[in-house]
Amino acid sequence: MTTEIPFNKVAIIGVGLIGGSIAMALRSKGLCGHITGIGRTIENLVTAKKLGVVDSFTQELEDGVKDADLVIVALPVKKTPEVIKRIGAYLKPGAIVTDVGSVKAAIIEAVEPALPQGVHFVGAHPIAGGEQSGVAAASAGLFQGHKCVITPTESTDKAALAAVKKIWQEAGAQVVMMDAEIHDWILASTSHLPHIIIYNLVNAVGDTANRRADLMTYSAGGFKDSTRIASSSPEMWSEICGMNKGNIVDAIEGFQKRLETVKKFIQAGDLSSLTREFAKAKGFRDSLAPKQPALHKSHDHKPHEGPCNHDHHK
Amino acid sequence: MTTEIPFNKVAIIGVGLIGGSIAMALRSKGLCGHITGIGRTIENLVTAKKLGVVDSFTQELEDGVKDADLVIVALPVKKTPEVIKRIGAYLKPGAIVTDVGSVKAAIIEAVEPALPQGVHFVGAHPIAGGEQSGVAAASAGLFQGHKCVITPTESTDKAALAAVKKIWQEAGAQVVMMDAEIHDWILASTSHLPHIIIYNLVNAVGDTANRRADLMTYSAGGFKDSTRIASSSPEMWSEICGMNKGNIVDAIEGFQKRLETVKKFIQAGDLSSLTREFAKAKGFRDSLAPKQPALHKSHDHKPHEGPCNHDHHK
Repeated sequence: MTTEIPFNKVAIIGVGLIGGSIAMALRSKGLCGHITGIGRTIENLVTAKKLGVVDSFTQELEDGVKDADLVIVALPVKKTPEVIKRIGAYLKPGAIVTDVGSVKAAIIEAVEPALPQGVHFVGAHPIAGGEQSGVAAASAGLFQGHKCVITPTESTDKAALAAVKKIWQEAGAQVVMMDAEIHDWILASTSHLPHIIIYNLVNAVGDTANRRADLMTYSAGGFKDSTRIASSSPEMWSEICGMNKGNIVDAIEGFQKRLETVKKFIQAGDLSSLTREFAKAKGFRDSLAPKQPALHKSHDHKPHEGPCNHDHHK
Repeated sequence: MTTEIPFNKVAIIGVGLIGGSIAMALRSKGLCGHITGIGRTIENLVTAKKLGVVDSFTQELEDGVKDADLVIVALPVKKTPEVIKRIGAYLKPGAIVTDVGSVKAAIIEAVEPALPQGVHFVGAHPIAGGEQSGVAAASAGLFQGHKCVITPTESTDKAALAAVKKIWQEAGAQVVMMDAEIHDWILASTSHLPHIIIYNLVNAVGDTANRRADLMTYSAGGFKDSTRIASSSPEMWSEICGMNKGNIVDAIEGFQKRLETVKKFIQAGDLSSLTREFAKAKGFRDSLAPKQPALHKSHDHKPHEGPCNHDHHK
């Protein structure tokens, strides 16, 4: 890093939506020289090259990372520590390795003791993305206005931390430094629990649908809208559950306790307690509307979310 | 009903999205003469009159229903039987009363023994609506292509049943005759359980948000999208729970059993069972996409629901 460009050689492992977008952001901000894409699927790498997201590509880890100043691992969470441990031996002294996983403590725990002296790991998680996927959907502006959590530890190299922080700031993200444990606790609630509950809701309804083939023709749009995230990758979510076990189990148990209470209100016919419970949820949900950037079009906005929502349920 | 028009005088009790839309459908198909709107809120009734949805309006039940050939009660489920019981005494012999409630057995049970001889009740539930509400959103085409469940009993008058069936068919709905108990069992799964679970998910996350004010800034669009129905009316949903108690408690218990199993898979680190569970949900959810009419725009379609959905959770 003696030239003006912070990172002469960058390697991106996993050139999908996130990996491709951070490559484009680095390039657009003049933060890098040569970008090598590393992946398993040749077609995707060819596309990434054609789009100018990477300058070259390889399917060989050693080949791809050996001269890199910066390695960004944009793989599913289970693969992430495995791959980082493997590349450790190929990296040059001073190289910075960072990731984008939505689980942090387990990755750090596996990676930190395994990397050779002089190779610096910094954990990161950009909370962005959306419904699209693949390098064809990548864009330099993907992270604009979104949070990116960086999770340094006591042994994180200060210069490497500053460099990773700069990458995400230049990419337009709001960088927040946080303990990995806090990050994992937060994400268990805001993201991991919702996915598990929605998967479970779909299966519970699916059980009933097994008993009556035309069941779902008796549903309005609400169910489909609410369960879109159940189309997410089962493998990816299973891995996340495996790597954030404690927080997720706690979050599930909090949910279970509440649901048991709600069930008791219904059984007892205590509709005023039930109304209070639902009203609390409505209040919290309504409070979210203006605070977050609208990812979609107008259907995300307030006017469609009035008190008489789903008025057909009289 | 001696003229060519099936219903000379129609009374609509509750002139909102559903009540207003069925009035417009009746009118557009030439099925009615005069339509009277009955409601508590004068502003809404004035709007309904201005829009031509009703020909006249009143806030007095007796006044509104006394000469009616057909009375459509489009009120929340708890009010529905109360109001039908009250109007019984004012109705002329041969009058038909129908409703639009999303719970049927409890309404029928309360209403059938209470109506005078010669006044005919037919329970119905059009499964349509959407995110809008109020008479200003009403349209004659609202029910087009949607299911309308009609729930006759042994004592339902055959001619009244045929008349109500005709109304919904003319309104464009796919009419299905069904036992009230079957209807309530189906809706518990396809609609009531999802609302309860989403309310509960919002409250579980809300509990965590109470411990950390900025919690929800660490969430992508998934949570907000999945929980839109938590903005529905707490009173309405509490009433529905009170009136479909048995089926809803069964549905909750089915959900609870599954969630406990999922939790155990996570605790045991049994990721292959967990993946199978999530994959089953994904399979069921993906199978719904082509079957239902898209209520929104393109975000509802297949191309956005690929396997790498929410790719940012690496």
